[in-house]
Amino acid sequence: MTNSSNAISSASTSTPASVTVLGLGNMGRALAGAFLAAGHPTTVWNRSAGRADELVARGAVLAASAEEAVRASALTVVCVVDYDVAEAVLAPVVEAGAFAGGRVLVNLTSDTPERSRSAAKWAAEHGIAYLDGSVMVPTTVVGGPEALIFYSGDREAYERYEGTLRALGAKATFLDEDAGLAAVYDLAMLDFFYTAMSGLVHAYALAGADGVGAGRLAPYLDTISSILPPISAVMAGHIDAGAHPGDLGNLAMEVAGIDHILHMARARGLDVTVLEAVRRIAGRSVEKGFGGDDWSRTIDEVRG
Amino acid sequence: MTNSSNAISSASTSTPASVTVLGLGNMGRALAGAFLAAGHPTTVWNRSAGRADELVARGAVLAASAEEAVRASALTVVCVVDYDVAEAVLAPVVEAGAFAGGRVLVNLTSDTPERSRSAAKWAAEHGIAYLDGSVMVPTTVVGGPEALIFYSGDREAYERYEGTLRALGAKATFLDEDAGLAAVYDLAMLDFFYTAMSGLVHAYALAGADGVGAGRLAPYLDTISSILPPISAVMAGHIDAGAHPGDLGNLAMEVAGIDHILHMARARGLDVTVLEAVRRIAGRSVEKGFGGDDWSRTIDEVRG
Ligand SMILES: NC(=O)c1ccc[n+]([C@@H]2O[C@H](COP(=O)([O-])OP(=O)(O)OC[C@H]3O[C@@H](n4cnc5c(N)ncnc54)[C@H](OP(=O)(O)O)[C@@H]3O)[C@@H](O)[C@H]2O)c1
Ligand SMILES: NC(=O)c1ccc[n+]([C@@H]2O[C@H](COP(=O)([O-])OP(=O)(O)OC[C@H]3O[C@@H](n4cnc5c(N)ncnc54)[C@H](OP(=O)(O)O)[C@@H]3O)[C@@H](O)[C@H]2O)c1
Repeated sequence: MTNSSNAISSASTSTPASVTVLGLGNMGRALAGAFLAAGHPTTVWNRSAGRADELVARGAVLAASAEEAVRASALTVVCVVDYDVAEAVLAPVVEAGAFAGGRVLVNLTSDTPERSRSAAKWAAEHGIAYLDGSVMVPTTVVGGPEALIFYSGDREAYERYEGTLRALGAKATFLDEDAGLAAVYDLAMLDFFYTAMSGLVHAYALAGADGVGAGRLAPYLDTISSILPPISAVMAGHIDAGAHPGDLGNLAMEVAGIDHILHMARARGLDVTVLEAVRRIAGRSVEKGFGGDDWSRTIDEVRG
Repeated sequence: MTNSSNAISSASTSTPASVTVLGLGNMGRALAGAFLAAGHPTTVWNRSAGRADELVARGAVLAASAEEAVRASALTVVCVVDYDVAEAVLAPVVEAGAFAGGRVLVNLTSDTPERSRSAAKWAAEHGIAYLDGSVMVPTTVVGGPEALIFYSGDREAYERYEGTLRALGAKATFLDEDAGLAAVYDLAMLDFFYTAMSGLVHAYALAGADGVGAGRLAPYLDTISSILPPISAVMAGHIDAGAHPGDLGNLAMEVAGIDHILHMARARGLDVTVLEAVRRIAGRSVEKGFGGDDWSRTIDEVRG
């Protein structure tokens, strides 16, 4: 082996650390599989039996209890359905002292920043080094070069295990010592995502009502997706500066455009509750005298 | 000059057709300017004086009335604030018979498909060849290689003037003989656009509430924008097929994610009316037993 200047990758290729995964749902199995693929001795545990079979066939060790699983490794990843379950699984393990000896806990279960912060507080009270994470990609992408996973919490623990955690996703990103930040980024991205997804479906319904098939409209919707990043960058500048000049477009014109869409959609009997809510927020900005401002001005109305 | 197999571009470069533009607001001036830049003898008219000055300095002829302007060219483009105004401007011109002799009218004013279709009917009753269009780009892009303008209505008129109309935008696209189709595409694209714009602002507000500046979040929102086209293509396939398999994601999981966002946003006092409406639509799909289906299934609820 040649000398490598990259201590992390050298360490992880020469002596892969032992790891434990608690929870073998769709995501937990993908995480354990990624550790195995990267050569980490992997101990797994799941409430119901059977879900570990394929992982065991690939070399994983199935522990008889969560406590036994945690004791087997210096790093434990938990990924279950929600935080109530995560805490129920972990509480007796912690009481039994299984995390003693500087073991690190990484919680990749999704929830709100509040739950992440209270889990971090609870871990600190028990002297456990704690990282909270959000997996931003589907199971099929986990372990690959495009897998983005956010981490926040104990920076020292992250730095110690960064090479190990990269086995789960090359785009591992440590955000902040505030353990809630991974959830903040997660939920802000999903907020944009689900709202945009709702807009896509509505556009297909609107065009479809006048006989335009979704496949015909799709390429044009892509041109909208492609102009969102530069618009989002302009918006971000406005928001961080607290100034919203309407050089590129202005709310008064945009509200008039939304009214045309609402008129068309109502005449076709479509549900217009989402765009009506968008219209009310933008309309409030216009009523306050910001009709000449950029769309980013509506953040004042969202903030309430 | 060499023989060209492209009759249109050869015609438009050798003998640019005379054109008329009615309405010299921001968009009308951009359209007239693009005709002038392409060498077309251009006659212009606007209700209030003064707005033609720069165009006249560049060679445009200012007509004393809309009727005189229409008589000056075989092709007239009208672009005013709305269809009420367009019809008020055009009615006396039509009554005076100024469109006689096969003149073509292109209406680039934005409105609903209904207004476009009734304008087409009215034009047909008066024997006028009519095209209805939608300018999909800002004034600064008009006339350039990226300028997308939809046309629908009289196909023969479009084919005759395609070369001339390309002066306004290289991405001129004839959609259908239904004159309302340009407005359908326009409004469907804007439907997605404004809904997504609302999601961007909300994401910035949500992350900002926990101290994450917009500039820090922006690159991650771009990764969401970049995954929308492939997702939109899958959705379009589902919608056109009327089948919504949830292999890539399912509504039950997505609704749980939305609930986390709503919980976080409510705790920070944000306006959640848009995402609540998204949640209600997706929730109705889940209640009907489609929790295992793809997000595209929500189109049934949008259609009502
Ligand atoms: N799947 C994805 O694409 C994806 C993407 C990003 C993030 N995530 C997040 O990853 C986390 C796990 O998701 P998943 O897709 O793996 O869910 P899943 O397939 O439904 O698995 C749920 C896991 O939770 C366990 N569990 C549920 N109730 C339990 C209880 N009372 N006691 C002990 N264990 C219990 C299940 O164990 P049993 O097998 O015994 O039921 C199973 O291991 C979620 O927070 C999700 O938001 C998932
Ligand atoms: N601007 C854009 O970026 C953009 C992009 C795509 C589509 N569009 C569409 O293009 C159309 C025109 O927009 P614009 O930006 O040019 O608007 P604008 O700058 O406000 O200009 C409005 C035009 O309408 C005329 N007008 C208003 N009321 C009139 C009346 N009662 N009688 C006669 N003329 C009257 C105005 O004439 P006066 O000068 O006498 O007031 C002016 O020529 C709209 O349908 C808009 O949706 C615009």
